[in-house]
Amino acid sequence: MTVPTAVPFTLEDYAARMARVVTDARAAGLDGVLVTPGPDLVWLTGYRPTALTERLTMLFLQEDREPTLLVPTLERPDAEGAVGSAAATLVDWPDGADPYAAASALLRPDGRYGVSDNAWALHLLSLQTALPGTAYDSLTRRLPMLRAVKDDNELARLAAAGAAADATYEEIVTVRFAGRRETDVAGDLADLLRGFGHEQVDFTVVGSGPNGANPHHEAGDRTIEVGDCVVLDFGGLLAGYGSDTSRTVSVGEPSAEVSEVHEVVRLAQQAGVEAVRPGVACQEVDRAARRVITDAGYGEQFLHRTGHGIGVTTHEPPYMIEGEELPLVPGMCFSVEPGVYLAGRFGVRIEDIVTVTQDGGRRLNDSPRDLRVVG
Amino acid sequence: MTVPTAVPFTLEDYAARMARVVTDARAAGLDGVLVTPGPDLVWLTGYRPTALTERLTMLFLQEDREPTLLVPTLERPDAEGAVGSAAATLVDWPDGADPYAAASALLRPDGRYGVSDNAWALHLLSLQTALPGTAYDSLTRRLPMLRAVKDDNELARLAAAGAAADATYEEIVTVRFAGRRETDVAGDLADLLRGFGHEQVDFTVVGSGPNGANPHHEAGDRTIEVGDCVVLDFGGLLAGYGSDTSRTVSVGEPSAEVSEVHEVVRLAQQAGVEAVRPGVACQEVDRAARRVITDAGYGEQFLHRTGHGIGVTTHEPPYMIEGEELPLVPGMCFSVEPGVYLAGRFGVRIEDIVTVTQDGGRRLNDSPRDLRVVG
Repeated sequence: MTVPTAVPFTLEDYAARMARVVTDARAAGLDGVLVTPGPDLVWLTGYRPTALTERLTMLFLQEDREPTLLVPTLERPDAEGAVGSAAATLVDWPDGADPYAAASALLRPDGRYGVSDNAWALHLLSLQTALPGTAYDSLTRRLPMLRAVKDDNELARLAAAGAAADATYEEIVTVRFAGRRETDVAGDLADLLRGFGHEQVDFTVVGSGPNGANPHHEAGDRTIEVGDCVVLDFGGLLAGYGSDTSRTVSVGEPSAEVSEVHEVVRLAQQAGVEAVRPGVACQEVDRAARRVITDAGYGEQFLHRTGHGIGVTTHEPPYMIEGEELPLVPGMCFSVEPGVYLAGRFGVRIEDIVTVTQDGGRRLNDSPRDLRVVG
Repeated sequence: MTVPTAVPFTLEDYAARMARVVTDARAAGLDGVLVTPGPDLVWLTGYRPTALTERLTMLFLQEDREPTLLVPTLERPDAEGAVGSAAATLVDWPDGADPYAAASALLRPDGRYGVSDNAWALHLLSLQTALPGTAYDSLTRRLPMLRAVKDDNELARLAAAGAAADATYEEIVTVRFAGRRETDVAGDLADLLRGFGHEQVDFTVVGSGPNGANPHHEAGDRTIEVGDCVVLDFGGLLAGYGSDTSRTVSVGEPSAEVSEVHEVVRLAQQAGVEAVRPGVACQEVDRAARRVITDAGYGEQFLHRTGHGIGVTTHEPPYMIEGEELPLVPGMCFSVEPGVYLAGRFGVRIEDIVTVTQDGGRRLNDSPRDLRVVG
């Protein structure tokens, strides 16, 4: 197996991202942006603390001040080791000191700040108490485009992750399904994803028979039988960027009903992908896929939105959902994953990652979407 | 290897925890407690969603209302599968609906609520916007005792995790250190922890030579050499409860300085453990350990607090730190882990988990603390 290599992100890449966030924040009416460990911080600095704890780590991006990264003294060496940290001034606080006093000194007492969605309530409440005149907004709500548009290096990583997911699928359809447990096949999926270059496996859904009708089922002890319809949904991170692919297979020849539902979902997924082009609202992708399923009489059985963004996480804005009017922009990457779930019987889901191009959409994973028969 | 088994928590266990939280919340001046996925929710319901996403899951515990668990419709089957969920009324919200409207309907418009420390800022900000008259406090700040006192079943699990950590240490000192990389020994530690029953490995620190002087170093590519002092710090979850042990070993015969520093840390750790008894403030444990190190002239090189609580996580309140006046209570469990870090040269840390008994403290892991020579 060939494991792809990625072009490293440079200090200049991270500095440019920080500068863009400051500009975008001002345009959104914010005095700055407060970033805590997680995808936002990884994207802005490359820094991922070894553990998420109650100790405050926060990156401050503001127009009138150099980027500043506040870290626990203990974790300073780790923070210094990240490529993008050099684009920020490091300030550390020792155990026993008040990190919110240190943070407050970096903020305007009447400022309005965007804050990472996954920032701990503990930290937000402490800042609100320390500086009662400040106001805060969800970064996703206020700056939904923050990480949404990928540059060429990011696109190359997402494409490599998608290719590894395709290779995983081509292998998994050759393994034995009948007589093995879902968790066994899930283990195969994880091994294949790692073998094809993923450093992290986030999910390996194997939903056989009635378990496939629960869109959030992972993999359980159920033994797969001949005649089962099996939903496979697998992904993780390769070179720091996500894959997320779903295919539905039949163990032995499918029933007429399974074939029919699968074809409805395949056409819905195709319609969703074909709706992708710059300027179209996210909700139009959902509507295009949903219309096919509703017209076929399965609208009530399509239980979830059509898609979610992907990047340094396998699940992030933008969302392809009714009510999301954000327009698609070249470089955005997200899943298109309609499904039909017949409670107690079986489910079908088909999913690809799609990137918005100058004049349409392009799949970043593209293994065959026909109903494959496995053994 | 014998893997211990745990007595399952029952519906009654979870219902009793919920009832106790409601009582404690009232005593703390709160109208209720809002719990999001993570350790608080696991402890109160046994429910751990398969992924942490932007979709709101929240348990509402209030005096004038039955416990209510709000979940995304998609995740309802998973939530129903948790033993403790049956002690709450389940309410679900579908993709596209506003979960904060559903949450607001469960809250008093002028209520004051404790909220899980790790609740996402996105959720807190959305509740603050939906109900501007509500107020929120950090659950750890307002109810620091929430999960701090363990019952017998929890203590048995923590003891089993500690015994597995002891067994891991007894094995790791027999493996080859010299000439291997830190990450190789870290891999051995992870394999041993799993082999002795851990279902989750949270950290396997191997800090050799100068790397040991960074208390947050995990394990890197450095090749361990004869003459190195090596900090080992490893733990994870067994039957859902944590282990966390540190020992420092010498590869070949130690220098006089390493022996001296190790002895100072050993005595400091012993002093910390001996300070443990009901009614004593947490900070006294820190002071007792720190005094030994300060008196020996290494006070400036003890860079961190002396300990942290442990339970369904490997890192939680209470904290053994200057300024923490919370009194120790029988059933509390926490680490006592002083260290000395000589920048650029080596570090020493010794750590045990201790539980508060009726008249003192008892170690839950207890492998030898003398300076062991490894090969």
